[in-house]
Amino acid sequence: MNNDIEQYMIKEKPYYRAVSDEIELYEAAYSVRMPMMLKGPTGCGKTRFVEYMAWKLGKPLITVACNEDMTASDLVGRFLLDASGTRWQDGPLAVAARYGAICYLDEVVEARQDTTVVIHPLTDARRVLPLEKRGELIEAHPDFQMVISYNPGYQSLMKDLKQSTKQRFGALDFNYPSHDIEAEIVAHESGVSADTSDRLVSIAERARNLKGHGLDEGISTRMLIYAGSLMARGVTPVVACRMTLVQPITDDPDMRDALDAAVNTFF
Amino acid sequence: MNNDIEQYMIKEKPYYRAVSDEIELYEAAYSVRMPMMLKGPTGCGKTRFVEYMAWKLGKPLITVACNEDMTASDLVGRFLLDASGTRWQDGPLAVAARYGAICYLDEVVEARQDTTVVIHPLTDARRVLPLEKRGELIEAHPDFQMVISYNPGYQSLMKDLKQSTKQRFGALDFNYPSHDIEAEIVAHESGVSADTSDRLVSIAERARNLKGHGLDEGISTRMLIYAGSLMARGVTPVVACRMTLVQPITDDPDMRDALDAAVNTFF
Amino acid sequence: MNNDIEQYMIKEKPYYRAVSDEIELYEAAYSVRMPMMLKGPTGCGKTRFVEYMAWKLGKPLITVACNEDMTASDLVGRFLLDASGTRWQDGPLAVAARYGAICYLDEVVEARQDTTVVIHPLTDARRVLPLEKRGELIEAHPDFQMVISYNPGYQSLMKDLKQSTKQRFGALDFNYPSHDIEAEIVAHESGVSADTSDRLVSIAERARNLKGHGLDEGISTRMLIYAGSLMARGVTPVVACRMTLVQPITDDPDMRDALDAAVNTFF
Amino acid sequence: MNNDIEQYMIKEKPYYRAVSDEIELYEAAYSVRMPMMLKGPTGCGKTRFVEYMAWKLGKPLITVACNEDMTASDLVGRFLLDASGTRWQDGPLAVAARYGAICYLDEVVEARQDTTVVIHPLTDARRVLPLEKRGELIEAHPDFQMVISYNPGYQSLMKDLKQSTKQRFGALDFNYPSHDIEAEIVAHESGVSADTSDRLVSIAERARNLKGHGLDEGISTRMLIYAGSLMARGVTPVVACRMTLVQPITDDPDMRDALDAAVNTFF
Amino acid sequence: MNNDIEQYMIKEKPYYRAVSDEIELYEAAYSVRMPMMLKGPTGCGKTRFVEYMAWKLGKPLITVACNEDMTASDLVGRFLLDASGTRWQDGPLAVAARYGAICYLDEVVEARQDTTVVIHPLTDARRVLPLEKRGELIEAHPDFQMVISYNPGYQSLMKDLKQSTKQRFGALDFNYPSHDIEAEIVAHESGVSADTSDRLVSIAERARNLKGHGLDEGISTRMLIYAGSLMARGVTPVVACRMTLVQPITDDPDMRDALDAAVNTFF
Amino acid sequence: MNNDIEQYMIKEKPYYRAVSDEIELYEAAYSVRMPMMLKGPTGCGKTRFVEYMAWKLGKPLITVACNEDMTASDLVGRFLLDASGTRWQDGPLAVAARYGAICYLDEVVEARQDTTVVIHPLTDARRVLPLEKRGELIEAHPDFQMVISYNPGYQSLMKDLKQSTKQRFGALDFNYPSHDIEAEIVAHESGVSADTSDRLVSIAERARNLKGHGLDEGISTRMLIYAGSLMARGVTPVVACRMTLVQPITDDPDMRDALDAAVNTFF
Repeated sequence: MNNDIEQYMIKEKPYYRAVSDEIELYEAAYSVRMPMMLKGPTGCGKTRFVEYMAWKLGKPLITVACNEDMTASDLVGRFLLDASGTRWQDGPLAVAARYGAICYLDEVVEARQDTTVVIHPLTDARRVLPLEKRGELIEAHPDFQMVISYNPGYQSLMKDLKQSTKQRFGALDFNYPSHDIEAEIVAHESGVSADTSDRLVSIAERARNLKGHGLDEGISTRMLIYAGSLMARGVTPVVACRMTLVQPITDDPDMRDALDAAVNTFF
Repeated sequence: MNNDIEQYMIKEKPYYRAVSDEIELYEAAYSVRMPMMLKGPTGCGKTRFVEYMAWKLGKPLITVACNEDMTASDLVGRFLLDASGTRWQDGPLAVAARYGAICYLDEVVEARQDTTVVIHPLTDARRVLPLEKRGELIEAHPDFQMVISYNPGYQSLMKDLKQSTKQRFGALDFNYPSHDIEAEIVAHESGVSADTSDRLVSIAERARNLKGHGLDEGISTRMLIYAGSLMARGVTPVVACRMTLVQPITDDPDMRDALDAAVNTFF
Repeated sequence: MNNDIEQYMIKEKPYYRAVSDEIELYEAAYSVRMPMMLKGPTGCGKTRFVEYMAWKLGKPLITVACNEDMTASDLVGRFLLDASGTRWQDGPLAVAARYGAICYLDEVVEARQDTTVVIHPLTDARRVLPLEKRGELIEAHPDFQMVISYNPGYQSLMKDLKQSTKQRFGALDFNYPSHDIEAEIVAHESGVSADTSDRLVSIAERARNLKGHGLDEGISTRMLIYAGSLMARGVTPVVACRMTLVQPITDDPDMRDALDAAVNTFF
Repeated sequence: MNNDIEQYMIKEKPYYRAVSDEIELYEAAYSVRMPMMLKGPTGCGKTRFVEYMAWKLGKPLITVACNEDMTASDLVGRFLLDASGTRWQDGPLAVAARYGAICYLDEVVEARQDTTVVIHPLTDARRVLPLEKRGELIEAHPDFQMVISYNPGYQSLMKDLKQSTKQRFGALDFNYPSHDIEAEIVAHESGVSADTSDRLVSIAERARNLKGHGLDEGISTRMLIYAGSLMARGVTPVVACRMTLVQPITDDPDMRDALDAAVNTFF
Repeated sequence: MNNDIEQYMIKEKPYYRAVSDEIELYEAAYSVRMPMMLKGPTGCGKTRFVEYMAWKLGKPLITVACNEDMTASDLVGRFLLDASGTRWQDGPLAVAARYGAICYLDEVVEARQDTTVVIHPLTDARRVLPLEKRGELIEAHPDFQMVISYNPGYQSLMKDLKQSTKQRFGALDFNYPSHDIEAEIVAHESGVSADTSDRLVSIAERARNLKGHGLDEGISTRMLIYAGSLMARGVTPVVACRMTLVQPITDDPDMRDALDAAVNTFF
Repeated sequence: MNNDIEQYMIKEKPYYRAVSDEIELYEAAYSVRMPMMLKGPTGCGKTRFVEYMAWKLGKPLITVACNEDMTASDLVGRFLLDASGTRWQDGPLAVAARYGAICYLDEVVEARQDTTVVIHPLTDARRVLPLEKRGELIEAHPDFQMVISYNPGYQSLMKDLKQSTKQRFGALDFNYPSHDIEAEIVAHESGVSADTSDRLVSIAERARNLKGHGLDEGISTRMLIYAGSLMARGVTPVVACRMTLVQPITDDPDMRDALDAAVNTFF
């Protein structure tokens, strides 16, 4: 077993294309260790951004994909049995607090509201994490910061953060990048030409207008990169777009027709 | 205990009859390790296809039949007790990521939405699997690929993949093969004559028109092979069809009459 | 602990009175190891039939009474703690697959739909059972066959087999035997005279007409045998019928009157 | 730990006052080891009856008070940890089947429908108990018999025995005894005079008419014995009746008035 | 670990002011070991009464605060792991039954209906406690008695004792004491003057009239003692009353006004 | 493992600005060890107040963030496995009771109603904590006090304290401080000028009027300190306010406009 904090360092500079002043604002928030909430739709680059910031700040990053079954123990730690009895195993939140990592809870709204309560004492002036089962009180390392992501489109009456959780965070809004920036990203990541990535972004823009009119979400930047990757491998554009932009996200014949039409307009 | 990745190699070439360009498209997707989603009705050959592709690509295949009780630990791994304390046991997803297998989650829509969240870090640019309980971060083997199957007919408000999961996959649509190809398959697999398998497919085509009009699903290729197998053992066609095409799928007298009529038309 | 497959052999020929060609059809299905589904009402002889077939085929029979709390581990196996650490204990399904038994899941519709998913890889061309917790893939013994029972009267929106499960089975319909055969069975099993068993069957026939008109199920052959057994011990017929055919199945005064009247007609 | 079957023998003859031919009918049922269902309201003597029969037949009696949280393991057994690893501990049902006791499941309708499925193989011709976790098949001892109690007044859509369970039992109906017999019982058990017990039974008869008109159940024989016991200790009759017949079962002022009036009529 | 029954002896005579003949009635009930149910609103002295009776009778008292998560094992006992394997640990009910304590289940209506079933064999003529997991049958010590408390105001369709449980108990009704007695209690317990405690009781009487008209419960004797305690420490009466009689029990502005008005009338 | 009570001492005097006589009232309550309930909205300073009081009284403070998954064992303690068998580990409530700390249950309304029952015997005259699983009865240390926080805005039919719990506490109401005091706090904590903090408080006052008209809660003092902190790091006021006062708490365009307008009015 290895809690070595080193494995959580981002070794290579992640490709991140800033769209506004988000890098500077995050740096200001980190300088006062303000807990941060990154808001925005699926696949628009929140995870990449936090990786980039961890690399830029030179801090380890511990990412936890939240889900409904996650218990407080999954975050905080638990006792394991050992040859000589029980041994305490820090959870990702305890490791981050103890050794000074950025702890990133991805899709935090998926976690049970009450599980998220365990982050409260780490996100106010106390900056402590009580390990109640172990009878220990971790005082957070000076480098520790809490970051969560949040997709406003998912929020519902059943699944939303509690107000007392939200108030503990500063927030940055994210969205899909502007046309030119997104085309630049798609070309860089998939290896297609500037012209092809320009067309792909145009398809995405049409599809995003369908959000709420039959599509739960628009086409993400990540999906455009998938389409480009297949084209770069020689798959014909229309087939590549169908495999990556149409078939994965809808089975409704009308929506498929609408998306196919968008594809055919640009290829 | 044996995690030997060798046992997951497909030793013999599976019989698979291509119906379109699905083999080439899958190869292109695999070449960029794009996570794949195979869509289509029960028993149309999705599982056989992924076995064939694993064999063709020469990669081990780890199949997991998803169900509602499956926890993240069932996929990722858990600690087991040992003579000298606890020992970590990789789950199928961790084995596949560590040693470079194709990991196939069959009927993924049966799994709890939030259990599927554990595959997220393996299906974006990071290609990592955090073993949070062990404090280890597996970087996926270069050969690793994620594949899921998905039956659109099952999807409901309660059970559907999250949009943020769907967007991580390229998709291939599957359906029952064309008449001639399906007859070829049935004859090959069951040992009946071309004429008999032709009749069996004709029965299936009639029954598939009843889907949504009293039948939840049509008659699958697999069921035709069952019928043929019994005939090849000397069971009379009408009796064999009743045992395999009619009685298993409906108890409704009207539907049974309709299916019996279809059988009697061709035998 | 004893997984000795021998204990599952049927030592003595069970009494089974064939009602049609079910024995021959089952033999044909077993010859191609087709998974079988036995359909019919409670107490009509499905369990006895599968015992008879296991005896006739000379194969061990492992029966599992399904229930809602049954987990996949109950079928597949689990780790047990031992002096030297954990030890794997095969569940009944794993024992059957490994050593070549007929595995009979009784009242399968009681099991959670998703628990039944574990039988899928054993009921298609693969015939394997992945022990995911152990990292082992059992290839089924050539003698292994899967059999399930299914009471169509129980099926509801909440509890029914999934279509993708049903399609994996050939099916045989069962029902109460014809008058003469049922009387022969009751006389043989309870020790009453042919005349008495004839009367008992007549009572049952009347009661079966009440099914759906106040009775959930009719009177089964098993109940007639109970009544006969008490008579053979000297209990007067009317009292014996009340104890075994009336009082156990209804507390509704009108239904009790109707059933008592049927008893009084024949005794 | 002690599974010694001897501790379950009824050492002293229990006081039981027969009300009809129930003793003879039970003996006939036991002679063919027919599973028995004792039906009737709370506190009318079902438990005392089965204790009496166990004493009369000279068989050990293992009683299990059923409840919703009872798992199959609570009935069948489980593995316990020991100095030398795990050790199997038979549950009450396994002890009874192995060593030939009468196993009495009290208030069986409280158990989850599906937990009761574990008694099925013990209550048909097979008379076996599969210990699936241990891989053992117990063949029931020749003396073993299954008995359950069942209060028809409790049965509801949510909580009722399955038809396939009911059909496995012969049934005896119980009710409060006739006036004279009940007075005899109350006098014998509480130590009050025949005159006093006669009055107590008269109060009970009035109260039982209120069942369904504001009272869930009538006043049971057991409650009358409580009232008598306090009087025998010198508590005045009206106070004793209020403590034992009125205050425990209702807080409704009107019902309390009605019950108090019944008490005041006879004391 | 210490099951020493001595620690459950009440060392000092508890202050208890009898309001009627409850002491004598309880003594009569204990003399026949009748299980007792103490009924009444929150904070009216039920717990103090049972402590007083345990002291007067010279018997140990084991109190269990019931809650919905309490399992049968919490009451009965469980196996613990030890250097030499598992060791049985009696739960509070088993300790009380084995060594002859009064076992007091406080707020029993909070426990799951079906958990309370475990007390049934201890509360009828059998007076036994089966430790099913251990295969032991405890015969209750002659001094053992079962006592439960029950707040009729809480009872609802979802949470009420089963009729078959209620019938096993004699019952004593409790309520707030009369004005003079309550004033005497408040003065004794809080240290305020007779005049002050008289005023506090007058406030409570006004508030109790609001029960059911915006207040779930009235002001309890315990709350008056709290108010008096603060006054005895120099807090001004109006502030002390607000802190202890008003702010804890309601946030409704109208109810607060009504309660404040009552306070201002008397101080 | 370390239960050392010393780690729970508040080492440095926390900054707390009294708004009324709450310090004196708390001291009076502590002098009689009255359990206390701190009521008020999120982020108004309840937690800081209890830290301040613990420091002033020189007592250790053990804080538990309550949540729905918290079991009684999480509060009371549990057995852990050790080289020589099981070892008891006190939970935070047991540590506090044993060694005389103030035990603060934060957001107690999040805990399951029935889990809170375990604090009952510590909050009445008994002042004991039964460790039922260990068979031990802790008599609370003379310094022990119970404190809970409670946000009236959260209370609902599903989640509210039971009346029998509320009655065990004295209560202090908290709210946002008056304009001048709040400005003083914001300036002190964030490092901005008096003028800037005055403007921030004005924004908050406007936003608090929106509570119940589209906002679940108003802007808290803590959020104003966040805004000030960013400004002190050079972020422009409007951007800092958007990050900390607007984006975290609402995604509704109209509410965002309203809040932006408030920001623009003062900066």
